[in-house]
Amino acid sequence: MKKRIILGSASPRRRELLSQIGVEFEVRVSDKEEIYKSSIPEEIVKELSLMKAENVASDLLENIADGSIKDTVVIGADTIVVLDDEILGKPSDEEDAVCMLTRLQGREHWVYTGVAVLDFGPDGEKTVINYPVGTKVYVNAMTEDEIRAYVATKDPLDKAGAYGIQGRFAAYIDRIDGDYYNVVGLPVSRVYRTLRECGGQ
Amino acid sequence: MKKRIILGSASPRRRELLSQIGVEFEVRVSDKEEIYKSSIPEEIVKELSLMKAENVASDLLENIADGSIKDTVVIGADTIVVLDDEILGKPSDEEDAVCMLTRLQGREHWVYTGVAVLDFGPDGEKTVINYPVGTKVYVNAMTEDEIRAYVATKDPLDKAGAYGIQGRFAAYIDRIDGDYYNVVGLPVSRVYRTLRECGGQ
Repeated sequence: MKKRIILGSASPRRRELLSQIGVEFEVRVSDKEEIYKSSIPEEIVKELSLMKAENVASDLLENIADGSIKDTVVIGADTIVVLDDEILGKPSDEEDAVCMLTRLQGREHWVYTGVAVLDFGPDGEKTVINYPVGTKVYVNAMTEDEIRAYVATKDPLDKAGAYGIQGRFAAYIDRIDGDYYNVVGLPVSRVYRTLRECGGQ
Repeated sequence: MKKRIILGSASPRRRELLSQIGVEFEVRVSDKEEIYKSSIPEEIVKELSLMKAENVASDLLENIADGSIKDTVVIGADTIVVLDDEILGKPSDEEDAVCMLTRLQGREHWVYTGVAVLDFGPDGEKTVINYPVGTKVYVNAMTEDEIRAYVATKDPLDKAGAYGIQGRFAAYIDRIDGDYYNVVGLPVSRVYRTLRECGGQ
């Protein structure tokens, strides 16, 4: 029997990726807060993804009469862009996006997605699987005109690091080492393997 | 002034990729034959892409009164999947697709796209730019059930190497080294740079 799968993310890109590989799932998002203690990028995304998954599970539990979640897998994920050990979040405005892209162009950076899978068995027992996946991204040199033209598309404004690899910015991605879908927001092949191990697929 | 751009490929995936990076272009496909002499994968895709572009240009010329193509860029492309120096084409049927995927799973292979750009200047003079781009693809181990389930989706049947990285098969791609879009069918960042150099962008 396949388990019930819950994706604990509001990101339309993560929904698309999980659908793309044929997984059937529901989406639940918690409005509980996420905080982290680490200062190491790989650890931060692990913490954040775990907290997202735990918050969704805790919301679920509040609505379950017998107090336990059974035969269910809850997935949390969080993606960050890292340049020289500094985390680039979503840009605050267009000028901030221009700044970020000016720093990213002509060199390589890392994208990390943290994945947390809470695997609830038939008796409600919980197994936690939590890991970061990193992809190295090489961005071509860009002129200021190219950066401003890309920012004018508004594509960067809702994205960590001020770019989306899956859109027009593809013109500037020289190459990657790692999982492409990890840069989009979910390392689907690794997640698929995890789900298979949990009995989620 | 931007040049007129013609994509000499019937592939809907290549059209989508060129549109994705914001290039405006027309599609022209020639029914002239393409043959190659080389036995080296990188050379074969160079030859095939060049012949596609030359065939489209020669069709165009037949319809031009003054006998010359001006301020126009013609793009040809051809993609192959290479495993241990053997070229894997499109599978002949479902069993052939199962065979190919059985060989590809659990290891790495190369995907090469040849790109040919014919750059016609204001006086009809032609510059030829022709190169291969390679991406290394690592496919996870797959069970026979997984291979047969993927083949049953029919997705492999029209694709060299019997898979499409952009669909459900993403579940089995561990990672890549190189340009993701090169595996889909067109190395967009390299093509974008070439077009910029030609005055096509």
